Amino acid sequence: MSSPISRPLIPEGVRDRLPREAARMRRLAARLADVFRAWGYREVVTPGFEYLETVTAGVGSLGRREDLYQFFDRKGRTLALRADMTTPIARLAATKMAGEPLPLRLSYCAPVFRHRSGKTGSANEIWQSGIELVGATGAAADAEVVAMACAALAATGLRGFKVGLSHVDFVEGIFAAVGVEPSREVAMKEAMSARDLVTFEKGVREAGLPADREELLLAMATFQGTYEQALVRFSSVGNLRVERALQQLGKTLALLSELGVAEQVSLDLGLSRLLGYYTGLVFEAYAPGVGSPLLGGGRYDHLLADFGGDAPATGFALEMDRLISALERQGQDAGEPSPDTVVECPAGREAEAMGRARELRAMGLVVVVDLLGRSGDALLAYARSVGAARVVDADGATMTLATGLEDPVKLDPAREPGRRSRSVTYNPIH
Amino acid sequence: MSSPISRPLIPEGVRDRLPREAARMRRLAARLADVFRAWGYREVVTPGFEYLETVTAGVGSLGRREDLYQFFDRKGRTLALRADMTTPIARLAATKMAGEPLPLRLSYCAPVFRHRSGKTGSANEIWQSGIELVGATGAAADAEVVAMACAALAATGLRGFKVGLSHVDFVEGIFAAVGVEPSREVAMKEAMSARDLVTFEKGVREAGLPADREELLLAMATFQGTYEQALVRFSSVGNLRVERALQQLGKTLALLSELGVAEQVSLDLGLSRLLGYYTGLVFEAYAPGVGSPLLGGGRYDHLLADFGGDAPATGFALEMDRLISALERQGQDAGEPSPDTVVECPAGREAEAMGRARELRAMGLVVVVDLLGRSGDALLAYARSVGAARVVDADGATMTLATGLEDPVKLDPAREPGRRSRSVTYNPIH
Repeated sequence: MSSPISRPLIPEGVRDRLPREAARMRRLAARLADVFRAWGYREVVTPGFEYLETVTAGVGSLGRREDLYQFFDRKGRTLALRADMTTPIARLAATKMAGEPLPLRLSYCAPVFRHRSGKTGSANEIWQSGIELVGATGAAADAEVVAMACAALAATGLRGFKVGLSHVDFVEGIFAAVGVEPSREVAMKEAMSARDLVTFEKGVREAGLPADREELLLAMATFQGTYEQALVRFSSVGNLRVERALQQLGKTLALLSELGVAEQVSLDLGLSRLLGYYTGLVFEAYAPGVGSPLLGGGRYDHLLADFGGDAPATGFALEMDRLISALERQGQDAGEPSPDTVVECPAGREAEAMGRARELRAMGLVVVVDLLGRSGDALLAYARSVGAARVVDADGATMTLATGLEDPVKLDPAREPGRRSRSVTYNPIH
Repeated sequence: MSSPISRPLIPEGVRDRLPREAARMRRLAARLADVFRAWGYREVVTPGFEYLETVTAGVGSLGRREDLYQFFDRKGRTLALRADMTTPIARLAATKMAGEPLPLRLSYCAPVFRHRSGKTGSANEIWQSGIELVGATGAAADAEVVAMACAALAATGLRGFKVGLSHVDFVEGIFAAVGVEPSREVAMKEAMSARDLVTFEKGVREAGLPADREELLLAMATFQGTYEQALVRFSSVGNLRVERALQQLGKTLALLSELGVAEQVSLDLGLSRLLGYYTGLVFEAYAPGVGSPLLGGGRYDHLLADFGGDAPATGFALEMDRLISALERQGQDAGEPSPDTVVECPAGREAEAMGRARELRAMGLVVVVDLLGRSGDALLAYARSVGAARVVDADGATMTLATGLEDPVKLDPAREPGRRSRSVTYNPIH
C-alpha cells in the first residue's frame, strides 16, 4: 500500500456528487428526459472521447482548441475528451443514422469536458442534458426546439425563467450594413460573445464611425424586446440579411406565442451564442439571479457536412449545475435519499433479519439491515442519523420514529399476517 | 469548414449507442438502480478523470498501469480517466463522507476506461453499474452484497445465471501450504487470474512438487461445488488461513441459502478475481453462453487506507454490455423507442398542428409533429417508418396504423370532447 495521497483530492474544475447532489441531478435529468421523450426525442450515448478531428469540428463555438483535454492512443493518434454533445451527435446523424427517416430527434444527458482551470470557479466537467433536431428547417422547427426548452425548464419546477432569441444573420447583416473593418469586427464579436459591453462599446468608439452607425452597433448588442419593437428600431437598416433574419424571428415568435410561451420568450439580439457552428436562430435561457445562461442552442446547418452529411439542424444544451443553482435560489431543495426502515440484526440472527428486510422490500420499502449489530438507543440513534422513518427490531416489532412534520408511512398489517405488532412513537431530539 | 474526416469514425474500443441500444442500457440501469435503492444504497457521481495517484491506488486488480488513459493538466500534473468506480468511491468514503454513520451504502452507474486496444474486441470504455458497502465486515455483510448481485441480475429478467464464490485467503493459504517458490507463485496466480488453466497446469508441472501437492494446486484452481464438497477436499490441508477462509465461505453460503439464493450460488475457488485490492471473499456471476463474468466483486479491506481512511469494504461491479449480451442470447430484445402519434403539419397550419401535439402530450402520449409537411401516403409511410401507432391529420382526425399483433392504444374520446373523430385502420405492408 502506498502512503495517502496529498491534497487536493481531485483535479481542478471537476467535482464529486455525494448522494444528495447525485439524487438531485438524476431526478432533474429524469424530468427532462420525460419531456424529451414526450416530444419524440430518442436518447443516444456516445463515447467519452473521440478523435481530435471530430471534437474540433465543433470547437469554434466552444472556445479554443487548447481548451480540449488531449491524449494519445497506442498508435499515436490524438484523442480528446468530447467538449460538447452536438458534435458527436452531428457525426452520428451524418453517418450511422444517415439512413433513418428525417427529421431525426435525438437527446442526451452526459458530461462534456473543457479545460478552463485558469478561470475562477469554472467547471471543466460539465453535465449537460439536451436535444438535437436534424433534418428540419423553418420557423416550426425552430419553434419546436424553443418550446421544448421552455417545457423542459418548466418541468423542473423552475419559475421566472426567460428565453432570449437572436439570429446569426441579423448580427452579420448589421456588421455588413455598418461596414466595420474585419479585424475590428472580430474583436467586437468576441466582446459580444463574452457579453462584455464595455469592451464592445470601446471598440465601437475607436472604429471612427458616423454617430448613427455607432448607435446601430450599440443597439444591436443591447436590444431586448418584442418583435414589433425590433422592427421599429431595425427596419430602416436596409440590409437584406437583417430583414430576412427579423422575418424568421417574427415567424418563430408568432408560433411560440400561439403555443402559449409568449410570456417566457422575447428577442435578445446581442446574446452571446454568435460564434462557431451556428447559422440561424440562436437562443439562451436565463433564470432570476443566475448570471450565466442555463441553456443555450440554435441552428447549425453546416456542421453535418464536416462528417460527410448534409442536413440542417438545431438543438439546445442545458447545463445541469446552473439549473440546480437556479432551483436552489428558489428554495427548491433536494432532500437526502434515506431508507424507510432500519432492521435490527443481532449477532447470530442475521438470516432472520435479512429475511425480514427482504419481505419489507417486497412491499416497496427502502430497507437497510444494521450490519453493525446495534441495539437499543444506539440502534435508534443510527436510524435517526440516516433519516429512517422506522425501526424493526429483532422480534419483528415496528417502532415509528417521528421525523418532523411528515407522518411516516404505515406498514400494512394485512401484508404481515403472522407478526406481533407494537408501535412506539419516539420524538426527535431537538 | 474542414473536409470530412477519415475513417474509422471513433477510436478503438469505444462505441456509439444508437436509440435502441441507449434505451436498453437506460432501462436496465433503471432496474438495477431500483434494486440498489430498495437495499438502501445511495448513488454517487464522481469525476470522469482523477489524479493519476488516485486511479493507480486501485489499479492492481484492473490490469497494468500502462492501461490507463493519461494526460496532463495545465500545471503539468498527470491525470487519468478513472479505470474503475471502486477506487473513487473508496476515496470519497475515506474523505468527504468520513463523518457519515457507518456502514456507507453507495451505488453508481458510469463508464470506466482501460486502454486494451491491442486485444481483439476488448472494450476500452466500459459502462458499469454497481455498489459498495463500506464499514461492515463479516458473513452478513458479504451475504448482503452477494444477495444483492443475485437480486439485481434477477430484476433484469436474466435467467440461469450462476454466482461463484472464492476467498483470497483460501488461495494464499493453499500456496503457503504447498510451498511454491515466489516467482512461480506469481506466474501461477496470473494464469489463474486469466483463467488460463493450461498455463497454470504447466507451471504446476514445472515446479517439481510431490504429486499430492501438484494435485492440491490443480484442485484449488478448478474446484466448483458446495461448501460440504470443499470441506471434504480441502480440510486435510492443515493450513489456518485455508480453514478460516472455508469457514467464512461456509457462513456466508448458509446465510445466502436461508435468503433463498442457494440455487444460484456455489463455490468456484479458482475464480479470477484474486489479484489487486481484494482481501477476503470474492465472487463473480456468469450467464449461460457468455464467457466473461457479467459481474464481479469482493472484499477490499485496505483500499481506504490509500486515502487516509480505515474501514473494511466490499462491493461489486456489473458490466452493462455483458449483461445486454446475455439478455440478447435469451431472446430478450429491447424494442425501438417510437412515437405513439405523428401529427400532420401542412405549411401555414404549424401553430394548429403544434397545439394539437401539445394536447396529446398532456394525455401522456409520445407525439411528433411532421415538420417536413408530408401528407397522404407519404405521411403514412413516414409514420410507419418511425413505428408510430397512429396519425392525426390536419383536421384532427385520427388514423390508427395496425402495427403487428399489438392493439394500438385508443385515444380517450372523453379527453377530446370537441373533436370530430374518424378512425381508419390500415394494414401494415408485408
